[in-house]
Amino acid sequence: MKLWENNVRKVVPYVPGEQPDQPHMIKLNTNENPYPPAPGVMENLYTFDTDTLRLYPDPSSKILIDALAEHYKIDAEQIFVGVGSDDVLAMAFLTFFNSLKPILFPDITYSFYDVWAQMLHIPYKPVPLDDDFRIRREDYYEENGGVIFPNPNAPTGELESLEDIEDILCHNQDVIVIIDEAYIDFGGKSALPLLNKYENLLIVQTFSKSRSLAGMRIGHAFGSRELIRYLNDVKYSFNSYTMNHLALALGTAAVEDDAYFRETIHKIVTTRERMKEEFRSLGFVFGDSMSNFLFVTHPDFPAAQLFEALKQENIYVRYFNKPRIDNYLRITIGTDDEMDALLEFLHNYIKR
Amino acid sequence: MKLWENNVRKVVPYVPGEQPDQPHMIKLNTNENPYPPAPGVMENLYTFDTDTLRLYPDPSSKILIDALAEHYKIDAEQIFVGVGSDDVLAMAFLTFFNSLKPILFPDITYSFYDVWAQMLHIPYKPVPLDDDFRIRREDYYEENGGVIFPNPNAPTGELESLEDIEDILCHNQDVIVIIDEAYIDFGGKSALPLLNKYENLLIVQTFSKSRSLAGMRIGHAFGSRELIRYLNDVKYSFNSYTMNHLALALGTAAVEDDAYFRETIHKIVTTRERMKEEFRSLGFVFGDSMSNFLFVTHPDFPAAQLFEALKQENIYVRYFNKPRIDNYLRITIGTDDEMDALLEFLHNYIKR
Repeated sequence: MKLWENNVRKVVPYVPGEQPDQPHMIKLNTNENPYPPAPGVMENLYTFDTDTLRLYPDPSSKILIDALAEHYKIDAEQIFVGVGSDDVLAMAFLTFFNSLKPILFPDITYSFYDVWAQMLHIPYKPVPLDDDFRIRREDYYEENGGVIFPNPNAPTGELESLEDIEDILCHNQDVIVIIDEAYIDFGGKSALPLLNKYENLLIVQTFSKSRSLAGMRIGHAFGSRELIRYLNDVKYSFNSYTMNHLALALGTAAVEDDAYFRETIHKIVTTRERMKEEFRSLGFVFGDSMSNFLFVTHPDFPAAQLFEALKQENIYVRYFNKPRIDNYLRITIGTDDEMDALLEFLHNYIKR
Repeated sequence: MKLWENNVRKVVPYVPGEQPDQPHMIKLNTNENPYPPAPGVMENLYTFDTDTLRLYPDPSSKILIDALAEHYKIDAEQIFVGVGSDDVLAMAFLTFFNSLKPILFPDITYSFYDVWAQMLHIPYKPVPLDDDFRIRREDYYEENGGVIFPNPNAPTGELESLEDIEDILCHNQDVIVIIDEAYIDFGGKSALPLLNKYENLLIVQTFSKSRSLAGMRIGHAFGSRELIRYLNDVKYSFNSYTMNHLALALGTAAVEDDAYFRETIHKIVTTRERMKEEFRSLGFVFGDSMSNFLFVTHPDFPAAQLFEALKQENIYVRYFNKPRIDNYLRITIGTDDEMDALLEFLHNYIKR
């Protein structure tokens, strides 16, 4: 090792889901929305005055925050936006998890949490889910430096009740509790009604799934004014201008079209429920996902092999080679046509 | 203070330059380019397929990095991109400045350096510039945890020679040395020729000034393969997908049009040199700026008052209420028309 390497922060980086770019591929591996963004997004793009790109964007992201405030009926001072929910979560880890006590999150969860904790030298303790991959609320009663979990959880799709969430909040009023609601729009109940009751609650959401804008990198958080102010202070000390002009303009258009949003969600949820029946009849075992993916296992067909077989067919799903879930596949809900192609393959594969 | 506030990172945030939005304002306060981005930027925008926005962008930013590699004749593995040079610098501070010894930077410099250091708990020591606002290379011979300075420096515009920079590198081979070249394209000599000689050298540049894309948030860094790999490891552990589809597409168009780039630079440099003569004849005192701004003081007219008077006229410049520079104004080089309006006001103000 060279001497200058002594001062380098050394990490095992997060490996994002493969982003294959094959002609005619069926991409069900990173939980993207199969439908395009709202028509207003295209309109805002094609009428955008590129001359203004020479100017810095508004660092306060006012236009986007105001649209969110209007949509969710929440005060603008209770909203934070960032470059995808990953950016929002990274800022939240940096801002709120500075205890010597470990932060708590489920052992099976979004695989970025332990990466952030390691990178930022935050002590952490994974809390095992029960055998049905559900959170046991009592496990979060012990002393800790903060709590974070997704609801619905990823990659399981399991939704916890607001009652359980409030119970965890009740037992953790001395630390920040982050509920990561990346998938909440697909049938879950948001913790938003708890926002004004618990000033230590941060709710994080994203435009990448339900709003079809993974490519624009937009995420947001709701919290008490105090929490959002602390988060903004750190954000302004890290990068003042995170949201570019087009992210602001296009994100705003996406929020404003509620009818399109509901229609898209409805289509995905309908397809998901149909898929549950189909997968069940094929012998797959899985929980009652409330997200835009299913997390499935099959008693007779190892997931790793099925994953490879699907890849051969240009169908990409997600496989995690990790303890407890290494016989599962996470399959994004695509269009009905994409799902039918997947089913056709699975029928043949399983009856082979 | 509430108990949950114990774990919060508390910072005094960076205050970005005011972003006024007045009709007919003359905006010379945040060193933006007065000319629009290259025509290809508009073309790429108006032919962009918004349907692809539902998909995640390429986390490796290959299209943009390849364009930079081609333009600068540098290996793609030696290039890093981020959400503006602020994002690149924040990642670099996080990755490379992890010593218990203080990092060194000039006392008069980009006002974000001490903000990053404070936010990330990095010890630092501001090194006074000499009376002409120049770097004394011997001041950087002492033991330290890293070195960073802009060249040309901001807000002074002073350019240090490559010889001085190499001398500082020579004396600091055990730490990372970052040269922040945000303004290098306006007449300075980049440290790029030193890149393959010093594997601890990181050179940071931006699309916000010379490429007229402040609004798209694009910055980049050049370094040894080792340095860029370490930087990417931390970046992938912070936010895997930082550059959105449009930043990648539009940034690439900007890099590819070298003729437009040179033409714009030429116009700004010509205006700057004319302004130097005009300002001199008005009695202003200033160094030989090699950037797209002048940093001026006047023996008879206090900067703070002039700043306010200009604001009244809808002319925005930058004033820093800080030791040693609180009688200076930083004035961005705008179009010739904007500069003429500024000069007309100054003539009247000074002869009043």
